[in-house]
Amino acid sequence: MIDLRSDTVTRPTRQMRRAMAEAEVGDDVFEEDPTVRRLEEETAALLGKEAALYVPSGHMANQVAVNVAVGSGEEVWAHERAHVLSNEQGATTFLSRALPRVFDTSEGYPPQELLERWAEGVDDVHRARPALVCLENTFSGLVVPPSEQRRVADFAHAHGMRLHLDGARLWSAAIALGVSPAEVAAGADTVSVCYSKGLGAPVGSAVAADSVTIRRARRVRKLLGGGMRQAGIVAAGALYALREHRDRLAEDHRRADRLATEVSAIPGLEASARTTMVLVRTPDGRAADYAEAFAAHGVRCIPFGRETIRMVVHLEITESDIDDAITRIGEAAARL
Amino acid sequence: MIDLRSDTVTRPTRQMRRAMAEAEVGDDVFEEDPTVRRLEEETAALLGKEAALYVPSGHMANQVAVNVAVGSGEEVWAHERAHVLSNEQGATTFLSRALPRVFDTSEGYPPQELLERWAEGVDDVHRARPALVCLENTFSGLVVPPSEQRRVADFAHAHGMRLHLDGARLWSAAIALGVSPAEVAAGADTVSVCYSKGLGAPVGSAVAADSVTIRRARRVRKLLGGGMRQAGIVAAGALYALREHRDRLAEDHRRADRLATEVSAIPGLEASARTTMVLVRTPDGRAADYAEAFAAHGVRCIPFGRETIRMVVHLEITESDIDDAITRIGEAAARL
Amino acid sequence: MIDLRSDTVTRPTRQMRRAMAEAEVGDDVFEEDPTVRRLEEETAALLGKEAALYVPSGHMANQVAVNVAVGSGEEVWAHERAHVLSNEQGATTFLSRALPRVFDTSEGYPPQELLERWAEGVDDVHRARPALVCLENTFSGLVVPPSEQRRVADFAHAHGMRLHLDGARLWSAAIALGVSPAEVAAGADTVSVCYSKGLGAPVGSAVAADSVTIRRARRVRKLLGGGMRQAGIVAAGALYALREHRDRLAEDHRRADRLATEVSAIPGLEASARTTMVLVRTPDGRAADYAEAFAAHGVRCIPFGRETIRMVVHLEITESDIDDAITRIGEAAARL
Amino acid sequence: MIDLRSDTVTRPTRQMRRAMAEAEVGDDVFEEDPTVRRLEEETAALLGKEAALYVPSGHMANQVAVNVAVGSGEEVWAHERAHVLSNEQGATTFLSRALPRVFDTSEGYPPQELLERWAEGVDDVHRARPALVCLENTFSGLVVPPSEQRRVADFAHAHGMRLHLDGARLWSAAIALGVSPAEVAAGADTVSVCYSKGLGAPVGSAVAADSVTIRRARRVRKLLGGGMRQAGIVAAGALYALREHRDRLAEDHRRADRLATEVSAIPGLEASARTTMVLVRTPDGRAADYAEAFAAHGVRCIPFGRETIRMVVHLEITESDIDDAITRIGEAAARL
Repeated sequence: MIDLRSDTVTRPTRQMRRAMAEAEVGDDVFEEDPTVRRLEEETAALLGKEAALYVPSGHMANQVAVNVAVGSGEEVWAHERAHVLSNEQGATTFLSRALPRVFDTSEGYPPQELLERWAEGVDDVHRARPALVCLENTFSGLVVPPSEQRRVADFAHAHGMRLHLDGARLWSAAIALGVSPAEVAAGADTVSVCYSKGLGAPVGSAVAADSVTIRRARRVRKLLGGGMRQAGIVAAGALYALREHRDRLAEDHRRADRLATEVSAIPGLEASARTTMVLVRTPDGRAADYAEAFAAHGVRCIPFGRETIRMVVHLEITESDIDDAITRIGEAAARL
Repeated sequence: MIDLRSDTVTRPTRQMRRAMAEAEVGDDVFEEDPTVRRLEEETAALLGKEAALYVPSGHMANQVAVNVAVGSGEEVWAHERAHVLSNEQGATTFLSRALPRVFDTSEGYPPQELLERWAEGVDDVHRARPALVCLENTFSGLVVPPSEQRRVADFAHAHGMRLHLDGARLWSAAIALGVSPAEVAAGADTVSVCYSKGLGAPVGSAVAADSVTIRRARRVRKLLGGGMRQAGIVAAGALYALREHRDRLAEDHRRADRLATEVSAIPGLEASARTTMVLVRTPDGRAADYAEAFAAHGVRCIPFGRETIRMVVHLEITESDIDDAITRIGEAAARL
Repeated sequence: MIDLRSDTVTRPTRQMRRAMAEAEVGDDVFEEDPTVRRLEEETAALLGKEAALYVPSGHMANQVAVNVAVGSGEEVWAHERAHVLSNEQGATTFLSRALPRVFDTSEGYPPQELLERWAEGVDDVHRARPALVCLENTFSGLVVPPSEQRRVADFAHAHGMRLHLDGARLWSAAIALGVSPAEVAAGADTVSVCYSKGLGAPVGSAVAADSVTIRRARRVRKLLGGGMRQAGIVAAGALYALREHRDRLAEDHRRADRLATEVSAIPGLEASARTTMVLVRTPDGRAADYAEAFAAHGVRCIPFGRETIRMVVHLEITESDIDDAITRIGEAAARL
Repeated sequence: MIDLRSDTVTRPTRQMRRAMAEAEVGDDVFEEDPTVRRLEEETAALLGKEAALYVPSGHMANQVAVNVAVGSGEEVWAHERAHVLSNEQGATTFLSRALPRVFDTSEGYPPQELLERWAEGVDDVHRARPALVCLENTFSGLVVPPSEQRRVADFAHAHGMRLHLDGARLWSAAIALGVSPAEVAAGADTVSVCYSKGLGAPVGSAVAADSVTIRRARRVRKLLGGGMRQAGIVAAGALYALREHRDRLAEDHRRADRLATEVSAIPGLEASARTTMVLVRTPDGRAADYAEAFAAHGVRCIPFGRETIRMVVHLEITESDIDDAITRIGEAAARL
């Protein structure tokens, strides 16, 4: 089985397991776990922020960031398919009672004209106060151009709003742009990153920001039940991933490119690569049928809507897995 | 001044004032106010529902209806500009922690294809449970065709969802369709109506539904602080309006029609009537300028976005007010 | 029937009805109702605050005051039987997600030692931030001594908390203390008052505070659905009550005193007067039986717990009603 | 340093580290982690429930259990110092908008008379619906007698309420009572347990219940951000602890007994053992001074209020640590 469903399926490598087995730990709720502290410091430094906080999941990283920025009844602006809204069971309204206002652009960020329209009439008693803009970078694998992110950040700050960057796959954006993670995170008041997904660690994410925000975030993490005791065990895996697995994402990007090129050569399929992701367009809204057929030939992937299948290249996918995947996808497609 | 800003500005008539002055009252929190009880019964009967509940505002009627239908973290589907979402300060998420999912069609109701797409993948752990569809009828003055409302209701019920009908101006829909209010409310599990707005009462709205739902609604009204003591005073005005002012809406519709026709004859302006509302399209996104100019000539109205001005015909607008309004709008437009 | 269940049962007098019938009104959601404005201004002036806001119920007045003071997850300190907590269906946690911390003293206010204990360890990550102390004055008819209220206010302010005064029956406290309403409201950041209850108006309450707080309160009122259109109708009744019915509370106090004295003379019963309220202690936890027997003899009242019955003297209870009530209570008690 | 602050400070043993390093893992959000599944199954079986769910913290286990049992605005009855309320930053009201109603008994469970009083008047429109009773077992180290727990469970079920058992230290209760964990969990609709604390695992807790409840709990865990990817790493440590460290709690109990006996012999101090905990009463409300003095002599512990110090015996505390602790405490006390 070649598992291209998600980059979340990667299992820890032998070296990562060793790092975890040997981790120096303490009670992190008392802020006494040295490995967690080191992970938080290195993450903050990489992202150009003052501080960071380790949490059990990317979802929690985002929700903590929303909660510190938004009061009950205030507006959060985000893409209709942003994880912070659509993929997290309504957590933003459940946990923070924020009112979503959504845009739906293929490139993942809002046009200036829309922002300006939404900012009108803010003082009306019928209107909720806009508090936060959220961006994802990458957005379904797409890199947000730095100039666009800067534009949105400037707009947010000029209107008394904050910018949260869901950087679950920010590491890929940095590689693709050839810049540092800090440059990708620039302009964001809070940024969340994942150590699982592309980096391949078993557990954990972080939210980074200024120190005052992170102090508040620590309280919110506690409130949500995200305080773990000897978290250094899993933090050690995250630290290893952060140090050793960022650069190798370039390989995943190349493999995704190759996969897309070869799949596009298969009759009926059209594929495009976006960092580690390959989106495959299938004929006649039959994405589910195709995904099933691919699985029957040993390639697991996930339909995204009715037309498109998503494949994600990751740490466990080798060059020869790509070869095999291409062969099997071709065989499966030929029979449909 | 001819005030076309909204049908909410009407003041009670002399007869209505007399009805209020003479109202028989009791403590409605103890359910001992006979006038409130009569109003609730007549309203329920008119709407073809088992029971109704009097509340201080249309906003509260809607929010009570949402709250009895939706658990924390569940989805509410509604038009992007539906009052229940956009015009009520995020109350749906604040009070009920519901996750909005919005459509944005010019006719105010969702196409079948969209409903079907949204109903997919409901069992996914990432997904909030869809609980409620909301429609408005009229929607910005537009009547929702009964067949479309039935289609949406059937879809909702087939998928374990409820339908709430925001019928603030349902009375106008009934007049325009030439059917009873009950026929307009058919298929809706809950329906809210306003006694102010078109009917001209000073205070109050109601939500109607089956008896069990209304019993729960009564608790929610208390929770929100909507329980009033000798509410019979204002309920008497509402009861008068319900009995005496429904039929006369036909006049308002005719006047709106005439206003639209004449305004369309003014160079640069294009107007269309929708029951009691007239939407006037202005040139070059100058709606605010035009609204200001009209006001300077004695006609108050409200810009809706950058292109359009909304004018609402109501109880206090006479035939000769329409004549005057047309003249003044023509004069104002000529100078712009 | 002599109805001593509550002072909320009073019906408007003839003069009050006339004031309502002739009220000058406008659309209060647009802040254009002159009667509402006058009521709010006179109320604010009487209470020594900058501004006031008219709302449909005392419950909403309290919940608006809590909401402007408390962020989600913060602590509200109040008496276990305070209306703001126990009598409002958990509205404080539902609407404001505040964490209640309760005291249970017979006099209705917290001892200094308790406040100090609760203020310890506030910076602990396990602890919610204390944001608000609530007092009621009168508390079940008991007047809170000004020195005690000042002590609590000083403590709250010294610890970064606010003080909300539930003054539903503050008018009685002022009469009993022989001071102005403003003196009773002194030290409170927000104060709620009722025009129904002792003053006898049919509908409405207000919350008073500094202007900035009231601006925010206006938004919260809208959020809760408390914005009424031509609210001047009922506000006129409230304004009449505020001007004409405050002084006459002294009579109710005297009548309550007399009622308590005479009831205490009835074998088996022990009664004490607290402003307009009379608490009657019944033998052997038979409060419900006694209340039923009194009702059968034409005196309605409400059991408070198992031992005590509450009787409230109000606007509609005349001197001779008191005579009758005493006779009937005596007869009923004799048969039990 | 002898660290008696809490049993949460234990670091994983060498064998536990090996178990984690070699754990078989998968993506637990896709329910594909075999180690997590095994842990959940063994935990459910031990507790006599149908299913269990692994979560990152005891706090989350409790909050998930509250959330599946309680609707917004409903009542939760618990001890004033119950973790579910007092030690979790108001999470119960924040996350579930539940209204706490608290008892304050030294033995940790409510008397029958109180339950009955609280169950009165439940249908009143002013009253929130009671939905859940919470118990802790052990409660600050005290074992709840099975007959008392049964009584509370029976009461809850007879009144349409559920019972949640916070069993963070249920393993100790089972050892102390000489019964199985399932017997301690009997009668509880949901039970939470911790693998850290007494059992010594680095990360994680579980909530156990019937299968339908656990399916809903899985959704709530996702909502709170508690879904971890290759959670099998830490689950392996928890599984090791569950299998290997339960029986040895008997040793901790004996050591706590010995510590209490010897400390009581020190002039001015009075100590009592409750399973793994020792509560030391200090003279004159000087708990903080004593705790500081003990720390200066190499024994860390935490003051509980002004009079009492809590010491917890755990996995890392050996027989000779107890000897040393007694000596040092004696020396420190002698100088105060």
